[in-house]
Amino acid sequence: MSYPLPPATVDATLAAIRFDANGLVPAIAQQHDTGEVLMMAWMNAQSVAETLATGRVCYWSRSRQSFWRKGDTSGQLQYLRELRVDCDGDTLLLLVDQAGVACHTGRRSCFYRAATADGLSTIADVVTDPLDLYPLHGHKHPTT
Amino acid sequence: MSYPLPPATVDATLAAIRFDANGLVPAIAQQHDTGEVLMMAWMNAQSVAETLATGRVCYWSRSRQSFWRKGDTSGQLQYLRELRVDCDGDTLLLLVDQAGVACHTGRRSCFYRAATADGLSTIADVVTDPLDLYPLHGHKHPTT
Repeated sequence: MSYPLPPATVDATLAAIRFDANGLVPAIAQQHDTGEVLMMAWMNAQSVAETLATGRVCYWSRSRQSFWRKGDTSGQLQYLRELRVDCDGDTLLLLVDQAGVACHTGRRSCFYRAATADGLSTIADVVTDPLDLYPLHGHKHPTT
Repeated sequence: MSYPLPPATVDATLAAIRFDANGLVPAIAQQHDTGEVLMMAWMNAQSVAETLATGRVCYWSRSRQSFWRKGDTSGQLQYLRELRVDCDGDTLLLLVDQAGVACHTGRRSCFYRAATADGLSTIADVVTDPLDLYPLHGHKHPTT
């Protein structure tokens, strides 16, 4: 996919999305080649349009009420390979190429805890020290 | 995974989930072996507990305000292989074994439209006639 996508595509995509009462839609990020589900976050119409224009994923941070250009703070950029819309238009699937790690804990994926017979188990290792991702924030998650 | 999972696991899992103001959490269903993201729906605490007890995925239908045992109407059951909780506890990832098709349109996945240079394109074929899935409903989606 080369960016920007045509304005007609952006318009058709936005028209197919049913944003919620807060003007947001959940977006699932999946690594395009491995199939690993990395994270889920929210987008508004402007962040969808920006993402389709630039090819770099931009979410909307509900806690900060601002654009969240994935990787601005951590350096772990997320590049869009394809944006998909579900049947009801109320969820997006982003096929991405994630540089480094998606999770603020320094793991590739945010989904690193699994319900097992032994309880809720951690099933993925930290691959990047969060202090290297957020040197000014310590271990605090700057965006959600 | 054998079911039911122990009550201690159910309790630990529920304690890790941050349900929203409506008592719901989004749950992404991914086919466990192919990695295909099938759908996203919502669960409440009771549907999470039931799913961990039975090994069969039970959502909460926001439109019907009732339990939505995936496949009850369509016959396309969804069996749980593993339930994962994300770092913030506000999204679940369900690794499932989906019988037949997940989408009410008769496609394997609900994410069958992609933003392309040519507009919003349909990228997956119908593999089961929706009239066979919902003979009493016609093409209308009985649950969302």
